[in-house]
Amino acid sequence: MASQSSFIHTDTLYVGARDLVRLVQRQGLPASIAGVAEQLRRDFLRWDDFEKTPRIANHSRDGVIELMPVADAERFAFKYVNGHPKNTREGLPTVMAFGVLADVATGAPRLLSELTLTTAIRTAATSALAARALARPGSRRMALIGNGAQAEFQAIAFRDLVGVRELRLFDVDPAATAKLVRNLAGQGLDLTVCASTVEAVRGADIVTTVTADKANATILTPELLEPGMHLNAVGGDCPGKTELHRGVLERAAVFVEFEPQTRIEGEIQQMPADFPVTELWRVLAGQHPGRRADEEVTLFDSVGFALEDYSALTWVHDTALSLGIGQRIDLVPAQDDPKDLFGLLRQERAVVRAQ
Amino acid sequence: MASQSSFIHTDTLYVGARDLVRLVQRQGLPASIAGVAEQLRRDFLRWDDFEKTPRIANHSRDGVIELMPVADAERFAFKYVNGHPKNTREGLPTVMAFGVLADVATGAPRLLSELTLTTAIRTAATSALAARALARPGSRRMALIGNGAQAEFQAIAFRDLVGVRELRLFDVDPAATAKLVRNLAGQGLDLTVCASTVEAVRGADIVTTVTADKANATILTPELLEPGMHLNAVGGDCPGKTELHRGVLERAAVFVEFEPQTRIEGEIQQMPADFPVTELWRVLAGQHPGRRADEEVTLFDSVGFALEDYSALTWVHDTALSLGIGQRIDLVPAQDDPKDLFGLLRQERAVVRAQ
Repeated sequence: MASQSSFIHTDTLYVGARDLVRLVQRQGLPASIAGVAEQLRRDFLRWDDFEKTPRIANHSRDGVIELMPVADAERFAFKYVNGHPKNTREGLPTVMAFGVLADVATGAPRLLSELTLTTAIRTAATSALAARALARPGSRRMALIGNGAQAEFQAIAFRDLVGVRELRLFDVDPAATAKLVRNLAGQGLDLTVCASTVEAVRGADIVTTVTADKANATILTPELLEPGMHLNAVGGDCPGKTELHRGVLERAAVFVEFEPQTRIEGEIQQMPADFPVTELWRVLAGQHPGRRADEEVTLFDSVGFALEDYSALTWVHDTALSLGIGQRIDLVPAQDDPKDLFGLLRQERAVVRAQ
Repeated sequence: MASQSSFIHTDTLYVGARDLVRLVQRQGLPASIAGVAEQLRRDFLRWDDFEKTPRIANHSRDGVIELMPVADAERFAFKYVNGHPKNTREGLPTVMAFGVLADVATGAPRLLSELTLTTAIRTAATSALAARALARPGSRRMALIGNGAQAEFQAIAFRDLVGVRELRLFDVDPAATAKLVRNLAGQGLDLTVCASTVEAVRGADIVTTVTADKANATILTPELLEPGMHLNAVGGDCPGKTELHRGVLERAAVFVEFEPQTRIEGEIQQMPADFPVTELWRVLAGQHPGRRADEEVTLFDSVGFALEDYSALTWVHDTALSLGIGQRIDLVPAQDDPKDLFGLLRQERAVVRAQ
C-alpha cells in the first residue's frame, strides 16, 4: 500500500523467496556471497556498536523456533528461524527463515525479507570469512561432511574467498552427495566422493561439518585431526546438537561468534564454562593473532549469530533497492492522523453501529 | 507464491493493514471486538497450555522495539511492536505492530498479519474482559483519560461487553478529545468533555487511563479514588512508563496479565517485589473471586501480553480465511527437494560460474 501522504513513509519493502532468487540470479551467487561477506566484515569490525542478546528459543518435540534480535543505533533487526530435522520427510525444509530491518528512531519496519536462502549465503560467507582469517595460507583441500541444503553455498564461498580447489565429500545420505556433485559440476572444483568421514578428512586442509541431526553426534574424533587443519563446525547450533567429540575441542584453538550464545548452543556446550575461546571479530580487527603456528588446529565453532542476519538483511535491502526488486506492502497502516487509528475504519460508518 | 507441489504447503497468508480494515468493516467493529474477546477468554482459560516469556525489549532514546513470543503445543506466535511517543510529530503512529503465527510441529509460518489496528482491538477486548469480571455490576459511567489512537476501541468495547453508557473524556491535547467526540457521535454513548482528570473521574464507576508519555506520570492520585471504582490502567506498559501514583496501588486490589512481565513493565514496577497481585486468568477460571466487595477499588494493571496477540492472530487467521481476505506470499521458498536449496538458483546456471 502506497503512503496516503507523500511525507509519511510507513510502507515496508517485501523481498519474498522468488524475489531473492531473482536478486541472487541477477548478482550471481559468487558476487552475492562476496557482498554479504564484505558487509559482515564491516559489521564485525564495529562489534561494540551492537546491542547483542542470545536468541530466544522455543523448543518442542521435533524442533526449535527462534527469534534472533540485534540492533545498533540506527537499525533493529530480527530473524525468525526454525530447525526441524524431520521436516524433509514431509517435503518441508529443515530450516525456514525470514527477517525484518526496522528504524530504531521510529520503530517503522523498512524491510521484510525471506531468509531461508539468504541464511545459507550468510552462513557460508561467515564460515569463509573465518577460514580466510584462521586457515593456513594456501589451504586448497576441504572435506565437506554433510551434503545437504547448505553444502553448495559453503563450497562456492570457500572456493572464492579462501581459494579451495578440491572437495572431499561425505554424507550418510548418498542421494545428498549425488545432488551436490550434480550442482557443483563445472564450477572449477575437483570433487571426490568419499565412503566415510575418515576418508574425506584424510589430508584435508579444512574440514567443514554441516550435518543436521538434532543429537550429540561425534562426526569428528581426535584421531582424525592432522596438524594445521582448520575446522569449520557449522551444524552444531543448539543445546543438545553437537558434531564434534570433546577431544577435538581440547586439541584446537577455538573461535566463536558471540561467546555467551555459543556457550549455550555451540560445540563448546560440552566444555566447562571457562574453556578458553576467542571471538572472531577480535581476529578480524587485529586484536588477536588467530592462528599462532602452521601446526595449530583451529576451529570455528559457528552457531549463527543475529549480527550476521543484520548484515545479510542490510545487503538484501541495499541490493533489492538498487536492482528494483521487491514490492511495497502495508505491514503498517498509512494514516493521515496517527492519533486517529479508528479513522481507518470510517470509510464505512456502519461498522461501528451498536449491536 | 503458490506451492509448486500441491502436498508441500509452505506459503503464508498475508493480512496487511488494508486487508485488516476490510476484515473489520465486513465483520463490524463490535463483532470484531466480541470475537477477539471470546478467543481471549478461551485462551486465558487454558493458561497452563502456554509457554510464556516476558517480552524482549530494545530501548533507545526515543522509544522501544519489542518482540513478544508465546507458544502452545500447536502454534508459535510472536508480535513485533514499537512504542515511540514522539512519532506523531512526524506523522507516524506511536505504536506499529505486526505478527506471525507458525506451526510448532514444522516451524512453517502460516500467517503474517498487521497488528497495529488489531492490537487496539485486542487491548480493548482484554480491558473489557477484565472489567466485566472485576467492575461493580451495573457500572455505566466511565472516565476515559487519554483520548488518542486507542480511545475509540476502549469506548466501543466497554459499551458492548460491560454496558457502559456514559463517557467522561479528558486529554491534555484538546484536538485528541475533539477527534474522539467526532468518532463516537451516534454510537449510543453519552459523551462529556471534561476540563481535567479530576472532573472526568468524579462519580465514575470505571476509570480508564490510556495515555502515551514515556514517563512516570501520576494521572491518578489516591484522592481521586471513590469506593467501588474499577481502574483500567492501560498506558503504563514499560519500565519508566507509569500512570498511577503508588498510593493508588496501595488502595486497590490489583489484577495483572502475566505477573513476571507486569512486575517489570506495569504500574506495579513502583512497588516491592512481594506486592500482592492476582493474575486475571484465575478470576476468569473461577479460581479467585475477583472483586470482594462493592466498596473495593479494583485495578487491572494492563501491559499487553503475548498470549493476547496469539488470541488476536488466531482470530485474524480464522476470520480472514472464512471471508477470503488476504493473499498468499512466499516468505519461505517452495522446493521440490528440501535438501536442494541451491536448486532454486538453477534456472540460470550462469549465476554460479567462478568469478
